[in-house]
Amino acid sequence: MIKALLFDVFGTVVDWRKGIIRDAKIIAQKYKLNFSLEKFADQWRAEYQPSMAKIRSRERSFVKLDVLHEENLEKISKDFSLEKINEIDKLWLVKSWHRLPAWPDSPSGLLRLKSKFIIGAQSNGNISLITNMAKFSKLPWDVILGAEVVGHYKPEPDAYKKACEKLDLSVDECLMVAAHNDDLKGAKEQGLKTAFVLRSNEHGSNQLSDLKPSQEWDFVVNNFHELADKLNCEK
Amino acid sequence: MIKALLFDVFGTVVDWRKGIIRDAKIIAQKYKLNFSLEKFADQWRAEYQPSMAKIRSRERSFVKLDVLHEENLEKISKDFSLEKINEIDKLWLVKSWHRLPAWPDSPSGLLRLKSKFIIGAQSNGNISLITNMAKFSKLPWDVILGAEVVGHYKPEPDAYKKACEKLDLSVDECLMVAAHNDDLKGAKEQGLKTAFVLRSNEHGSNQLSDLKPSQEWDFVVNNFHELADKLNCEK
Repeated sequence: MIKALLFDVFGTVVDWRKGIIRDAKIIAQKYKLNFSLEKFADQWRAEYQPSMAKIRSRERSFVKLDVLHEENLEKISKDFSLEKINEIDKLWLVKSWHRLPAWPDSPSGLLRLKSKFIIGAQSNGNISLITNMAKFSKLPWDVILGAEVVGHYKPEPDAYKKACEKLDLSVDECLMVAAHNDDLKGAKEQGLKTAFVLRSNEHGSNQLSDLKPSQEWDFVVNNFHELADKLNCEK
Repeated sequence: MIKALLFDVFGTVVDWRKGIIRDAKIIAQKYKLNFSLEKFADQWRAEYQPSMAKIRSRERSFVKLDVLHEENLEKISKDFSLEKINEIDKLWLVKSWHRLPAWPDSPSGLLRLKSKFIIGAQSNGNISLITNMAKFSKLPWDVILGAEVVGHYKPEPDAYKKACEKLDLSVDECLMVAAHNDDLKGAKEQGLKTAFVLRSNEHGSNQLSDLKPSQEWDFVVNNFHELADKLNCEK
């Protein structure tokens, strides 16, 4: 029945916080800046959802996530004395989102899932971001869908529906895989099947959100290998 | 300098004629029809370029290639007494384009090229077609671009330019790989680098077209392994 698995990426497949901290540290050392790397990563990420709001409501035309990441960095630059960094370094930092490290189970777990299903990235990240990240972290996508392909940011209904359409599949032939209850809620409302993956360390050791399923999803797992087991994929 | 390889697919990566003949034979046997399978494949393919003309000229809104393949099959159905086949079999035959076999060097050659470059499908085929074909024939694309993603059929200029933009690369960082001189001409005119791959049997043993480069392309090779050698990819 299930033919394709659609994955949320930031937090579900990759550890964005670790990647941003890693690259922010390099910038901080280069410019001799002394700020909390964790706080920087969290504050940059905190601008993520608000920055898409005007696009979701159609007050603003669609722009890709790289553009929003750059604008969001601009917004928080002063708080971390980052106004002084040069353009090349700023662009390199924006592209940090293209170089995020995978959770340990992601590459091998995805390979197992790929042996039986189409595996697609259905992220808010743009095509080049997800492509470069896949090269960097060995993520073996069959297809990169996501906001730039479907023209809608999750959790807009069309973000899920159009992803299934692009694969020429009905919504109930697609399983949305995410570490975030709100993403799964959006997918379920459109008729997709759902899998919750616990990523209890996405926001660091004091994480409060998404520590358990908020409703009955079709699958609840601790990592991609558990999902592969439940979907009867070969070891 | 080169960061991504963009591939034409039909004829360049897969042997469409062999795949269509294989599936047409199944239909012919089922319905006890006696027609030339080669002629059927060639006539169906002959409708391919004309069917995109009105979309290229903007007389018709963009529709994906599956739709054109179905319409084109309709056009030639009478010539092969295919009006009598049922809807399920007709759809199965249209989806034959999703199940085309790779040229022998394609899967392993692409893997070598993938170790050093982004490899993307830049085909006129739609996303589901290229995704399903990749699963069927083990084509390890990093990213599926093409007409449905960029909204333009090759050889429209935007088909090439927008593919590079989606990867966040300049045109001269992208190498178009094709077995067709007109495709490479379109790419070169937009500033992409070009590689001609000889597929002397694409149209069968009496092929007359694309048996040699029509101008000086950056690379001229007989298969993907030769291209991998010239681009210094590991064995």
